[in-house]
Amino acid sequence: MAAKNAAGLFERINQSFSRQGLMTTLGAKLLRAEPGLCEFVLPYSPKVTQQQDTFHGGAIAAIADIAGGYAGLTTLAPDSEITTVEFKINLLASKQGGELRALGKVVRSGKRIVVTTAEVNHVDLATNEQTLLAVMQQTLVPVQKKY
Amino acid sequence: MAAKNAAGLFERINQSFSRQGLMTTLGAKLLRAEPGLCEFVLPYSPKVTQQQDTFHGGAIAAIADIAGGYAGLTTLAPDSEITTVEFKINLLASKQGGELRALGKVVRSGKRIVVTTAEVNHVDLATNEQTLLAVMQQTLVPVQKKY
Amino acid sequence: MAAKNAAGLFERINQSFSRQGLMTTLGAKLLRAEPGLCEFVLPYSPKVTQQQDTFHGGAIAAIADIAGGYAGLTTLAPDSEITTVEFKINLLASKQGGELRALGKVVRSGKRIVVTTAEVNHVDLATNEQTLLAVMQQTLVPVQKKY
Amino acid sequence: MAAKNAAGLFERINQSFSRQGLMTTLGAKLLRAEPGLCEFVLPYSPKVTQQQDTFHGGAIAAIADIAGGYAGLTTLAPDSEITTVEFKINLLASKQGGELRALGKVVRSGKRIVVTTAEVNHVDLATNEQTLLAVMQQTLVPVQKKY
Repeated sequence: MAAKNAAGLFERINQSFSRQGLMTTLGAKLLRAEPGLCEFVLPYSPKVTQQQDTFHGGAIAAIADIAGGYAGLTTLAPDSEITTVEFKINLLASKQGGELRALGKVVRSGKRIVVTTAEVNHVDLATNEQTLLAVMQQTLVPVQKKY
Repeated sequence: MAAKNAAGLFERINQSFSRQGLMTTLGAKLLRAEPGLCEFVLPYSPKVTQQQDTFHGGAIAAIADIAGGYAGLTTLAPDSEITTVEFKINLLASKQGGELRALGKVVRSGKRIVVTTAEVNHVDLATNEQTLLAVMQQTLVPVQKKY
Repeated sequence: MAAKNAAGLFERINQSFSRQGLMTTLGAKLLRAEPGLCEFVLPYSPKVTQQQDTFHGGAIAAIADIAGGYAGLTTLAPDSEITTVEFKINLLASKQGGELRALGKVVRSGKRIVVTTAEVNHVDLATNEQTLLAVMQQTLVPVQKKY
Repeated sequence: MAAKNAAGLFERINQSFSRQGLMTTLGAKLLRAEPGLCEFVLPYSPKVTQQQDTFHGGAIAAIADIAGGYAGLTTLAPDSEITTVEFKINLLASKQGGELRALGKVVRSGKRIVVTTAEVNHVDLATNEQTLLAVMQQTLVPVQKKY
């Protein structure tokens, strides 16, 4: 039963996520969805770079935003959607190549306001070395699903 | 002379900006670069949407980040680059179609720290109606140019 | 009539504000309350310093928080209160002596979410010179009045 | 030796902290100082309230700011001071009575920029029940000590 529910949650999050044109364009994928937690991966490519050829802060922010947002969505009723009110992100280091892993976690899920944090790590695929690239703190509100 | 310098500043910012794979992929363009100010445009397309078909918060954040960042770069010496330490963005409304205009302005440009704000407006291209979609506040540091 | 309403708004904000033990302790005072705008003053004293004898970032943040919060309250029905969901503040400079002027302004007042910004200026009372010390961006929600 | 160094670190942080007029006024005290970590306590009193008699967001922000700031200072050379560039705080709940415990932790300590997070918990002194009241994310820079 737990495994079935877990699979259901992954499918539900992935169904919403796969509708995001931005994320499809950048090449992001859902890795994990558990109650209060979501993890996404974003591989390095010429589509996510800034002027010095490292991951663009905007791409790091976008993957952190959805990691936090979908972590929040896992705590809401299945017919809900969620929208970002605001987020704040610190960019800690620059990396080229490899991939980003963004892990979002719910800090508090209230009726009106959901607060999350996310960490974005860079993974060097040759050495498996991880480097913390960004930390994010986010405020969300539940909204009506329109699709 | 002023016109020549203004053109020089636009070229300098555009040269850095056009190296950004993320912005080329999303379809953003530089509109204005003046001392302490930069404006970018991002047209609506399937590449910038979220799950409910409006502009993705991550795309709005990315265009706000570069508007603030390049506004900061206009205040630095020509051989400098700039990197985002952190930013915070409030998303105020959702819009589909049309285009985003992101206007970044320098609040304070110090030797070690540059602080900016940015506003992102949505423009309905049929009616020319503008709606404020987001406000951002950002911290940057000058870095060495590597290209 | 307008003057009477303006006086009414000032009284209403001041009534809520004067209940704040923290602000009474620090010596802050309401200067202005208009629809969508509030201004407060906080004089320098040994009660608001940090370890290097300048205004404490926590005191600057507290006065910015209430300037934004009460600006938000001016846009709500008279029987409402408002609470801070989150804020982000950049501290731009350090000052000793004189006073702080915190000006809060509403960016967007929605049914569920109110967004504001605030600027905190330092005023040198001998020269009347003003220095921008901080900029803040804030999210608020209307709540029920309990007193 | 380790115990002596730990005591030395506590004394060093406390020496800086006890110079803060704001914190003395509000009644805050240093509880712990370890490499990369600081904890402070702030008891409830009429000096820290907002208009509905709970802890003022400005007081919660001030104690979070110093918890993060002094956590950052523990990672710098003994003759350094540190200053807050910016912070962002989410206020999660309201509490009256008891005390606040603010725990700051260093995320990354670089030569130019130090990034921290802090959690502020409310402690009910009758039941020892803890409630997470706030989470903060902060950027600091090392500065010269002037005293």
